[in-house]
Amino acid sequence: MKIKKILVANRGEIAIRIFRACTEINVKTVGVYTFEDRYSLHRYKADESYQIGENNEPLKPYLNIDEIIRVALEIGADAIHPGYGFLSENSNFAQKCEDNGIIFIGPKVSVLKSLGDKITAKEVAVANNIPIIKSNEKPLNNVETALIEAEKIGYPIMLKAASGGGGRGIRVIRKSEELKGAFNESKREALNAFGDDTVFLEKFVENPKHIEIQIVADNHGNIVHLFERDCSVQRRYQKVIEFAPSYGLKQETKDALYTYAIAICKAVNYNNIGTVEFLVDDDGSIYFIEVNPRVQVEHTVTEVVTNIDLIKTQLFIAGGYQLGDQQIKIPNQESVKINGYALQCRITTEDPQNDFKPDYGEITTYRSASGFGIRLDAGSVYQGAIISPFFDSMLVKVTANSRTLDGACRKVRRALAEFRIRGVKTNMPFLYNILQHETFRKGEVTVNFIKQNPDLFIFKAPRNRATKLVT
Amino acid sequence: MKIKKILVANRGEIAIRIFRACTEINVKTVGVYTFEDRYSLHRYKADESYQIGENNEPLKPYLNIDEIIRVALEIGADAIHPGYGFLSENSNFAQKCEDNGIIFIGPKVSVLKSLGDKITAKEVAVANNIPIIKSNEKPLNNVETALIEAEKIGYPIMLKAASGGGGRGIRVIRKSEELKGAFNESKREALNAFGDDTVFLEKFVENPKHIEIQIVADNHGNIVHLFERDCSVQRRYQKVIEFAPSYGLKQETKDALYTYAIAICKAVNYNNIGTVEFLVDDDGSIYFIEVNPRVQVEHTVTEVVTNIDLIKTQLFIAGGYQLGDQQIKIPNQESVKINGYALQCRITTEDPQNDFKPDYGEITTYRSASGFGIRLDAGSVYQGAIISPFFDSMLVKVTANSRTLDGACRKVRRALAEFRIRGVKTNMPFLYNILQHETFRKGEVTVNFIKQNPDLFIFKAPRNRATKLVT
Repeated sequence: MKIKKILVANRGEIAIRIFRACTEINVKTVGVYTFEDRYSLHRYKADESYQIGENNEPLKPYLNIDEIIRVALEIGADAIHPGYGFLSENSNFAQKCEDNGIIFIGPKVSVLKSLGDKITAKEVAVANNIPIIKSNEKPLNNVETALIEAEKIGYPIMLKAASGGGGRGIRVIRKSEELKGAFNESKREALNAFGDDTVFLEKFVENPKHIEIQIVADNHGNIVHLFERDCSVQRRYQKVIEFAPSYGLKQETKDALYTYAIAICKAVNYNNIGTVEFLVDDDGSIYFIEVNPRVQVEHTVTEVVTNIDLIKTQLFIAGGYQLGDQQIKIPNQESVKINGYALQCRITTEDPQNDFKPDYGEITTYRSASGFGIRLDAGSVYQGAIISPFFDSMLVKVTANSRTLDGACRKVRRALAEFRIRGVKTNMPFLYNILQHETFRKGEVTVNFIKQNPDLFIFKAPRNRATKLVT
Repeated sequence: MKIKKILVANRGEIAIRIFRACTEINVKTVGVYTFEDRYSLHRYKADESYQIGENNEPLKPYLNIDEIIRVALEIGADAIHPGYGFLSENSNFAQKCEDNGIIFIGPKVSVLKSLGDKITAKEVAVANNIPIIKSNEKPLNNVETALIEAEKIGYPIMLKAASGGGGRGIRVIRKSEELKGAFNESKREALNAFGDDTVFLEKFVENPKHIEIQIVADNHGNIVHLFERDCSVQRRYQKVIEFAPSYGLKQETKDALYTYAIAICKAVNYNNIGTVEFLVDDDGSIYFIEVNPRVQVEHTVTEVVTNIDLIKTQLFIAGGYQLGDQQIKIPNQESVKINGYALQCRITTEDPQNDFKPDYGEITTYRSASGFGIRLDAGSVYQGAIISPFFDSMLVKVTANSRTLDGACRKVRRALAEFRIRGVKTNMPFLYNILQHETFRKGEVTVNFIKQNPDLFIFKAPRNRATKLVT
């Protein structure tokens, strides 16, 4: 392959994940780390590593385009993998890589530009007859306009304060009579609360699943999907547990999702891997949300059920290979097969009983789990590791696979019971409750699952007990 | 299920493996341990554990039938899982379990009796037209008889001293002229070397692969195979690396193996899981060796490529379920599918450069590997663990899966490079050399592979280097 040496412009588990893939295909790896990250494992898992930024900047250097390009040029990296977050969706970064003769491992600049902006992405969707969550087209200057716009969107709708946020200033409206009464009241409230009485309307999707389609496209126009993931289990729009494939969706709904995902990607000449996110309502209605033009945290579940390594696929695509080539081995859509179910949960230092506030300190005990059907992707987590407040609270991703979704739940529950993490609080008991919950085990979760089940938050703080599998 | 509580009459990784399966299906677990094993992890991974034997018997109590049955009765275990080794093939033990109303998780007593004896097993094979490695039928009192018997077996043959062993006193004979010259010489040598001039003839299988078929049979007459494993990589008849499925065998050869394996099991009304072992020569000739009526160390590779949990399958079969029941979910042969390749290697404390002598002492550093496609099955291995001379030298089994055999090799090599085990010598550099070897990566290994490749033993002792993935 023309790519011989890759710099990973990221940290933690995803940097290590990428190093592993590189090593397996004999590509040399370069890590970068900030001063605060100098003891992090990703530094040591690379073939060579370099500090970036000054001695008191924990995160900013990972966003410093010039600094990262400088290191890449100095050490002779042919390519940069941005991981997720940080610069992964930054079209300026991709452009700068190109300008300096470095391969950016991700979609080309024009794709990042067209899909990076949510409004442009929605325009692309509409132009390709892909349903989106509609909002009012005209400004809502008076109740009459609001009623006309609402009719166009279709009830139920949400009436939202433009300056609101975090769920504040939102009313759910189910028929025109309600809108008549609520419109002026909502504007008054918005003015009082946010100093701005602008309101807008948006389709209310009552109880949807969050379903996303994994796309793989080479630089030669070949494109396939790797089926879907269900990422409905969210708290404040953050994913907690993801699984693949989805459960309980009609085949026609799934087929529509695949078709839409491929269509929007083809429309922008998409290349490399990406994820097209949708909401799917009870009645099978589909709403496009956005495209994530990068690898995702939850890519593991797709890898495990398809046996396709998404990071290696990214590297080989960036190296110019076609999907059908021996290196990638996805000659056509039919060659992608699903085997069983996989489920990933993210063990974090967040305290579910204290509004998910991240905890930090030293990990005094760390014992992980293993065995049949358990995959671990960890960052810097080991006995003696210091969890600092500067970084993401994710410690390790646990991915389980089994022939059934319930089997995968059982495996992760077993693994969680074997894990021992002491010194910092973790979300493990909360995850355990979710995986024990009948709604989840039946695959019936929607984005409202955590909100609707306060019992998930009921558990005892783990004691510093012995290492029994089952307490 | 009628089985609510299982005692595992074993130790180390296989005990933990069984506890994990039990926990995932809500069956309570009981461990037993000897005094020397009192700090071993298997003791702590069970729901409850009991010491067996006196304070200075490291191994013998694991073979003490009465003691184990006593514990099982006292704590109210419904069933006993014997693991592998120890009492796993002991028909007296299975009988004693039955006599005491305890379910023995394995084949029924009559099966253990008929297949436990190698000679009986071969008789069963012959009666069912399954080829075996032929030997002389009449005593070889003179060269004339030897020539007639040799003709019946077919050249090449081995001329062996009956009292020899470990490869001593063996001659390979390729035609009758050679036998004429060698017969009396061989008898003289045998007399001088072993004080016994008895010799015998056996078919010489020149360069075979060791292929074994995994069988699953319920108590109701349903039986399937879970395809084959290649366990050719052996040193002194001990398996080192195993993979599934086999590589390079003709489909007709594989089909014959499946047919033979099912036939011999059906002939004895086999139940529970088991393995039928064969040699397969260059020319596709098949020779039955024996049946192992228990779970095997290398069962992991079959699990990973079929997604079928063999231990849970054992438990449900013992619990009376049929293969087609929802718990086991193998309604027919066609429902068993192979997905990619899996490969297992056994990391041991054996020193390949010192005739595989087991090393012992304290593990001062232990860092394992993880990530996509890596499964670990470990016993008591962690920083601070004491490796004693009393037990098996196996530390951890690393199983990798990928879409290709070479991909699985790459994954294990990557994992081995991430492992850090200090304080005791290990066979890791030797394993690395095997996985790097072109013959192995092409799936062309035979039982003579290690013997024929002395370069596998050439490596530098690992330094106490940093934790770089790639050195």
